[in-house]
Amino acid sequence: MNRTLLAILKILAKENKIIGSKEIAKKLKMYGVNLSERTVRYHLKILDERGLTKVFGKEGRIITEKGRQELESASTVEKVGFIINKIETLSYLSDFDIDSCKGKIIVNLSYIPKNKLKKAFQAMEYVFNSPFVMSNKILFIEEDNNNIVVPDNHVCLGTVCSVALNAILLKHGIPVISRFGGVLEIRDGQPYRFNALISYDGTSLDPLEIFIRGKMTDVSGAIKNGYGRVLASFREIPTVCLEKVKEIYSEMQKKGFQGILMFGQPNQPLLDIPVGIDRIGIIVVGGLNPVAAIEETGIKTYTSAISTLYDYQAMVDFKEISDNLK
Amino acid sequence: MNRTLLAILKILAKENKIIGSKEIAKKLKMYGVNLSERTVRYHLKILDERGLTKVFGKEGRIITEKGRQELESASTVEKVGFIINKIETLSYLSDFDIDSCKGKIIVNLSYIPKNKLKKAFQAMEYVFNSPFVMSNKILFIEEDNNNIVVPDNHVCLGTVCSVALNAILLKHGIPVISRFGGVLEIRDGQPYRFNALISYDGTSLDPLEIFIRGKMTDVSGAIKNGYGRVLASFREIPTVCLEKVKEIYSEMQKKGFQGILMFGQPNQPLLDIPVGIDRIGIIVVGGLNPVAAIEETGIKTYTSAISTLYDYQAMVDFKEISDNLK
Repeated sequence: MNRTLLAILKILAKENKIIGSKEIAKKLKMYGVNLSERTVRYHLKILDERGLTKVFGKEGRIITEKGRQELESASTVEKVGFIINKIETLSYLSDFDIDSCKGKIIVNLSYIPKNKLKKAFQAMEYVFNSPFVMSNKILFIEEDNNNIVVPDNHVCLGTVCSVALNAILLKHGIPVISRFGGVLEIRDGQPYRFNALISYDGTSLDPLEIFIRGKMTDVSGAIKNGYGRVLASFREIPTVCLEKVKEIYSEMQKKGFQGILMFGQPNQPLLDIPVGIDRIGIIVVGGLNPVAAIEETGIKTYTSAISTLYDYQAMVDFKEISDNLK
Repeated sequence: MNRTLLAILKILAKENKIIGSKEIAKKLKMYGVNLSERTVRYHLKILDERGLTKVFGKEGRIITEKGRQELESASTVEKVGFIINKIETLSYLSDFDIDSCKGKIIVNLSYIPKNKLKKAFQAMEYVFNSPFVMSNKILFIEEDNNNIVVPDNHVCLGTVCSVALNAILLKHGIPVISRFGGVLEIRDGQPYRFNALISYDGTSLDPLEIFIRGKMTDVSGAIKNGYGRVLASFREIPTVCLEKVKEIYSEMQKKGFQGILMFGQPNQPLLDIPVGIDRIGIIVVGGLNPVAAIEETGIKTYTSAISTLYDYQAMVDFKEISDNLK
């Protein structure tokens, strides 16, 4: 029984009445599961076949007694997922092709209250004109669609996740080792040192979400006067891949991507962080810096980092949406 | 140049005027450095000798030009400290003896606003009567002393840190491996599963502080109706030590300590978390559960987990202070 099926069963057990797939999809967000209504229906059919749920009327479902028993026994063995697995899974599943700029890319999803939208976009404007963002493309989703459910009175903002870089390099046969999410101190506009680090393979919470929640960033200061703290991550590549990585990155830059702030030297620590043997450290900006800037103004967002795969062609220029809101 | 010397230099550079050791000690807290005025004076003398600071009048110091240069170059190599090092260092340095109940024990320090003190103690009362606390002894410090500086309008609360268990076992030659800090879901009063985990060797922020800040606990629910979420940690001991650990733990219980919620089986996962070969998992309560309970009522505290070593004999019964406040 996978996490999604369990989450759906949990919702049905909690509601204890007939509910439809659309409502289930909305409630799933509370469990950190992002699914389209269509995918929810697919999972509901599996549950029906196993006798754990029962159809009532048009699309409505209710949990069966067998479903309740399954829920009780199954959830004891439900595992805590570690972030590194999410990174590796989505990197593998992404089919974004840098040459054609087509395919599904990894995005972070944030939900912004509608009545704070103008202020939020003002706060992000300078971030999208800075080096501390992966791309100036965003997803701007106002109503539910096949892939994303948007909670009432909110708008969904998608930003290109920095793990998209891993996915692009992986498609070229280059393995990127994601080590730490961190808060990077900026002085004189340059990376100076990490103030905080959390290892991706040792946490079930996304490090960048932790730093945003803990109010540890000062993206605004970093951009406006060159002194501040931005979200960044520390990764490693095999030394043998360096030239190829630079070549692909230069191609990425032509297509409007950026994000690598520093390359280290083979076997040499980068900003005091040691690397593995025959590896080179790289420092990559966090895709959530625009969202950190929103939170710095006191607006609360609900954010899910390294969230999902989304069609890159559906993304639009930040400026386009921003100008419309003015 | 160690972190303390650097922090003192930073304060002097920022103030840019003559300041005394008492004021420096207070400001050091902002850098997470807990030192007595006396220890600050000791460090200032080192800085004087190196020509980095200069004495002005009675106890006042100012930073020299050489001090500024040193600060600039030294802080680039200042390292981010990982929590596991703090755990191992304090476990080794603690000289608390369980038989005589004398010596320095590891404590967490929290600062509570004076005007919220009564409410805070009410919130903690049921925690100190529950299994989710290491000991019913606390430090209650209202004014600066040789070891602790108390910020204005605050009171310092010290709770026995769960790492004290590591220290006691280490004195008996038993190595404890601290793996994860976590949020432990309680059902029917029993540990059910971990909701979140962060590895101690992969984070520069204390996991339990992160969970408190992120409002992920429900200590109140866990105690009042048996369903909730408490702070806990996952550790491992070598299988060969099990009997000895149980023997020492039983001695600890006689002296008023508690905190081990579960012992696993050799080589067997405990609450789904796999252990190393020939090791046994144990689940230990977080020493900060009383502080989590305070935060759950909406009172903001400033907390430093696994903070410092303090004379156990200076600790008093929670009830004694609590009764006085009623």
